[in-house]
Amino acid sequence: MAIVGVIGASGYTGGELLRILAGHPDVEEIRYATSRKLAGEPVWKVHPNLRSVLPDLEFSDPDPATVGEDCDVVFTAVPHTAAMDIVPEVLDGGAVVIDLSADFRFDDVEEYERWYGVEHKAPELNDEAVYGLPELHRREIRKARLVANPGCYPTGAILAAVPLVERYDVKVIILDSKSGTSGAGASPSRVTHHPECAEDLTPYSPTDHRHLPEIRQEIGKVDGDVDVHFTPHLAPLVRGIETTAHFLLAGDDLEPEDVREAYVETFGEEPFVRVLDVGEAPRLWAVRGSNYCDIGVFAVGDGRVVVASAIDNLTKGASGQAVQNMNLVVGFEETAGLERDQGFHP
Amino acid sequence: MAIVGVIGASGYTGGELLRILAGHPDVEEIRYATSRKLAGEPVWKVHPNLRSVLPDLEFSDPDPATVGEDCDVVFTAVPHTAAMDIVPEVLDGGAVVIDLSADFRFDDVEEYERWYGVEHKAPELNDEAVYGLPELHRREIRKARLVANPGCYPTGAILAAVPLVERYDVKVIILDSKSGTSGAGASPSRVTHHPECAEDLTPYSPTDHRHLPEIRQEIGKVDGDVDVHFTPHLAPLVRGIETTAHFLLAGDDLEPEDVREAYVETFGEEPFVRVLDVGEAPRLWAVRGSNYCDIGVFAVGDGRVVVASAIDNLTKGASGQAVQNMNLVVGFEETAGLERDQGFHP
Amino acid sequence: MAIVGVIGASGYTGGELLRILAGHPDVEEIRYATSRKLAGEPVWKVHPNLRSVLPDLEFSDPDPATVGEDCDVVFTAVPHTAAMDIVPEVLDGGAVVIDLSADFRFDDVEEYERWYGVEHKAPELNDEAVYGLPELHRREIRKARLVANPGCYPTGAILAAVPLVERYDVKVIILDSKSGTSGAGASPSRVTHHPECAEDLTPYSPTDHRHLPEIRQEIGKVDGDVDVHFTPHLAPLVRGIETTAHFLLAGDDLEPEDVREAYVETFGEEPFVRVLDVGEAPRLWAVRGSNYCDIGVFAVGDGRVVVASAIDNLTKGASGQAVQNMNLVVGFEETAGLERDQGFHP
Amino acid sequence: MAIVGVIGASGYTGGELLRILAGHPDVEEIRYATSRKLAGEPVWKVHPNLRSVLPDLEFSDPDPATVGEDCDVVFTAVPHTAAMDIVPEVLDGGAVVIDLSADFRFDDVEEYERWYGVEHKAPELNDEAVYGLPELHRREIRKARLVANPGCYPTGAILAAVPLVERYDVKVIILDSKSGTSGAGASPSRVTHHPECAEDLTPYSPTDHRHLPEIRQEIGKVDGDVDVHFTPHLAPLVRGIETTAHFLLAGDDLEPEDVREAYVETFGEEPFVRVLDVGEAPRLWAVRGSNYCDIGVFAVGDGRVVVASAIDNLTKGASGQAVQNMNLVVGFEETAGLERDQGFHP
Repeated sequence: MAIVGVIGASGYTGGELLRILAGHPDVEEIRYATSRKLAGEPVWKVHPNLRSVLPDLEFSDPDPATVGEDCDVVFTAVPHTAAMDIVPEVLDGGAVVIDLSADFRFDDVEEYERWYGVEHKAPELNDEAVYGLPELHRREIRKARLVANPGCYPTGAILAAVPLVERYDVKVIILDSKSGTSGAGASPSRVTHHPECAEDLTPYSPTDHRHLPEIRQEIGKVDGDVDVHFTPHLAPLVRGIETTAHFLLAGDDLEPEDVREAYVETFGEEPFVRVLDVGEAPRLWAVRGSNYCDIGVFAVGDGRVVVASAIDNLTKGASGQAVQNMNLVVGFEETAGLERDQGFHP
Repeated sequence: MAIVGVIGASGYTGGELLRILAGHPDVEEIRYATSRKLAGEPVWKVHPNLRSVLPDLEFSDPDPATVGEDCDVVFTAVPHTAAMDIVPEVLDGGAVVIDLSADFRFDDVEEYERWYGVEHKAPELNDEAVYGLPELHRREIRKARLVANPGCYPTGAILAAVPLVERYDVKVIILDSKSGTSGAGASPSRVTHHPECAEDLTPYSPTDHRHLPEIRQEIGKVDGDVDVHFTPHLAPLVRGIETTAHFLLAGDDLEPEDVREAYVETFGEEPFVRVLDVGEAPRLWAVRGSNYCDIGVFAVGDGRVVVASAIDNLTKGASGQAVQNMNLVVGFEETAGLERDQGFHP
Repeated sequence: MAIVGVIGASGYTGGELLRILAGHPDVEEIRYATSRKLAGEPVWKVHPNLRSVLPDLEFSDPDPATVGEDCDVVFTAVPHTAAMDIVPEVLDGGAVVIDLSADFRFDDVEEYERWYGVEHKAPELNDEAVYGLPELHRREIRKARLVANPGCYPTGAILAAVPLVERYDVKVIILDSKSGTSGAGASPSRVTHHPECAEDLTPYSPTDHRHLPEIRQEIGKVDGDVDVHFTPHLAPLVRGIETTAHFLLAGDDLEPEDVREAYVETFGEEPFVRVLDVGEAPRLWAVRGSNYCDIGVFAVGDGRVVVASAIDNLTKGASGQAVQNMNLVVGFEETAGLERDQGFHP
Repeated sequence: MAIVGVIGASGYTGGELLRILAGHPDVEEIRYATSRKLAGEPVWKVHPNLRSVLPDLEFSDPDPATVGEDCDVVFTAVPHTAAMDIVPEVLDGGAVVIDLSADFRFDDVEEYERWYGVEHKAPELNDEAVYGLPELHRREIRKARLVANPGCYPTGAILAAVPLVERYDVKVIILDSKSGTSGAGASPSRVTHHPECAEDLTPYSPTDHRHLPEIRQEIGKVDGDVDVHFTPHLAPLVRGIETTAHFLLAGDDLEPEDVREAYVETFGEEPFVRVLDVGEAPRLWAVRGSNYCDIGVFAVGDGRVVVASAIDNLTKGASGQAVQNMNLVVGFEETAGLERDQGFHP
């Protein structure tokens, strides 16, 4: 059993963490749900769905070291560049940390500094951190003290790409992703203002989104020569990311069954990756609220392969994966607290 | 532990039943998921979200008596007027039946025959059936052999109305409901064709919807003199029903706190009804996928009270409530299998 | 031909005014599109749809008197309580003013002051202003110097109510309205943040919305004894307001054809009100971008009548009606510039 | 002035044609709006938005030759493979034909037969037909008797691709398109059933959509060596297609301004193509209901260029373009009847 804390609990990933942790069989207590602005308020004032399951939990504003001392596992769900201030203190307190920001995701600190435009304040910790995609780094995660939880886009994109890159001579991957609006977080802006986005669909940061280097880093570990491109779009739905991966291969055309076989070989034993039948498109509602990544493999030909993945950006793309990482780090059953959410239809 | 069957498992309420039952701690086995057309197909071909949790369950087409013999509890999720053919056979087989159709919901068989335009084929069974709204009829449900699960609109409407009707001199209730499109079921039609309904909101059957007599029957049990009106609308969202209940009262104006107190008194101990703070609007995402009915009580005055309820039409409005009824009939914990779904934000 | 100006042109009603005015056959020039913050920017930077039709128009920030001097007609599309500062100066400049705020809509200044919580700064002008609902006040509008353009909800609600109130003994009207999110304007907020509202539908200000006294005022002119209630909801669509009017009548039940006849008699000659067939629901896409108000009359009985109206909140509910008012005031064809927009399907 | 007819007027493209033609200054009369099933019904029963503007037009069911005799221009908006039966008869009657099906779009009849699985019944007419994309084939269209109106996806895709292909050494183009649901037409199906698609986004026919050969044909006319791929997606919105074109180039990287310049050079004089500023994303509402194609050019680098186009699939993607083609064929002003629709915000 573990005592846990969530630093930065008022946003969407914070709320999703609380939802999952509240039903986790191995979580003894959610000791902290922090928010500077909302300290003293019940968490259900912000996340009204949690009214019954967490009736007494209030937002608090302790210092990070205290959280680290009082908890076994701490999730940091604060903005990029803020996490690196907090995480060292929490670790000093003695807790394991699952960080949902980008601050510890880069193997190369300088790459981080280039893309995020700030100096890294804890480069040694960065070296120690493990990139928390269990399907690629399960062994290292189990031994980690600090897990850098992947970005939402990278989760769906990397899982869609790796099996093919591992096995075939992939020259180019174009990752065209479409995200629901909850990926933008809980702060209102013109971009996610309903009248502006509800009947629209637009690309943004089409060649230089900050998740691109993260995607390249992980695919690059499998094959450093693949040319990886990534273009995200804002789609008019709330939860979910669909990524269409267009692969250009050298050499012979593949049969759809060969492609599917690659994904089954890589992910067949994975508890949260489901390889669909050939030609079956993943559906966002089938993974909604769940920790699954569904992967569809399409008819191929003319030197190209198309693979599509679907995740819930707040679950497998953030908080569900964070809990999966906690389970690995602490030694709980990997699926604990996550197997009850099985998606929806519709 | 119970062995259960779902007759009519290919639609949305059937799929939602399977989702909930698959995670129910007291369900030993889902023995049958029937569908004439799809017999032999895995259920996940239709409900792809269930691929992992029910990998081996196939649709089958047994006769109802066999289902009744082999199961402890049978859910009948077939169209109105079809259920009354099937339910007697299932009961003869020995199972308890939770029927999700309208066929056994009416105390007065003739009223049913008027509204549904057919002769009732099992009027004695109809007399025996209990209307499955636990908040009103828990005691009778516990002893029932046949539970008539309420319609989706009636669930949200009756719960929004009863506490005030019980305590005050309500003259008129106008129930203005807005339903998501999943309430129309899985069969495509012009009404739920996305281009037609996605940026529209329209009333339908505004004075004579078939759920009206069901609503009147149950409110009438509390106070037979209230004038009850009901107008449903199709709203451009997938899951959820919001019902705004407009009450016209005789006598003194009420304070908002008095109104809230009425709902707290009636529902304070209910596991699946949450009375919100005065002035707090219920949110559909907060009940999505859950068995909750959230009730908001608004500032009142000028002889009028406004109360709003929110449910997920497929869960508390159908399959979740059906499982709640099973729990009561069989003697499981009332919340078993349902407490894990706590809604979402967002 | 008229020279026109739009004060407050960066919001949604401002943009919609520019769209309509740009294609108006009797508008010689849009001389001003004002915005303090955006002065010097092309209007198409904010309203990119107008890139081709208004390539050279820039936001400017002149003083109101200058706008009034240089223009024949000025539309003021500024927030409530700001308009009463500006309008007097514009009028002094010599222009006719169509004000889209609430500042001059109330016959009784004190009523305005109660609902908007400020002292009225131009009470004499308020006395002079004409409520700009052409279907009720066409004659006065033609002679007006200052037209108070109605609110979006009042437009759809009053048109849905008046014919029946005029002819029958209506005791109570409950107006249950559902608005698209563009009615909240262009400023982002939590309420219209896509993740929060896209799959939700909630009432707000259910008993005390500021449009209520406006609705009561106009219906009261027809029959001062009717009890009028109004509850608005935010619906997950962009443009459109559907209002379901529930009438409780004294006396005999009406036939649907009688009800329809009332609306045809009142509105039969109106260019922008379309009375639908009995039982036909109005569709929001059929009025989208147009100045129509579609009215559906439903089967009645049990002492109740249900009427539903549909408008585009930015067109007939705001800027289209403002242009209709301009046409009346200046003496253009009433439909000029408006007849080209005929709604859509779908 | 022209007398026109629409064969197949009950669907969405038929309705959109009627909407545009009803306001076209050079259309003397819409003589026919045909529908076998609905003959005798007013067209506004199906397209209620047209109630005021076409109050007396009824669906009829004349034989095609008669339509061809009585009209100057006939639009055939019937399903693929049905048009080639009808078009020859209409032409024999003497009318010019704008065909909205795929039947006459292919230069190579055998290619058509391969993709559509039927024998072409009028191969000589196919040779005569002109592909109706005015931006590429204006001169030929002006002299045509039979115009093959492009598919919705090809319109947005080809316009996004041609300027770059003309000028630079493009090796590969991956066209990733997202279409609103109105593109699927007016017939309900599971795919466009609101509960299934409203909160989902999925690829379909990702490597072999029937619009692919059409796209390849037209891009191939500019440069036969480019490798063109196309993957469409169904997006949860009603009207609009966003196409993100990913270009892989040989040779030096381009500056964004160079890319934009290519599009301005090609389309600068085009009345219905708007090249946006560098980095500005096209918005679907800005082209909604209009005949514009908006093109956004993004920051480039790493050997890749990203260009995004936005159209309304029913207007520039179908009926608006058909009217543009009529204008060219008959010799009207090219923008006649189309310039009044300037998109929306929002």
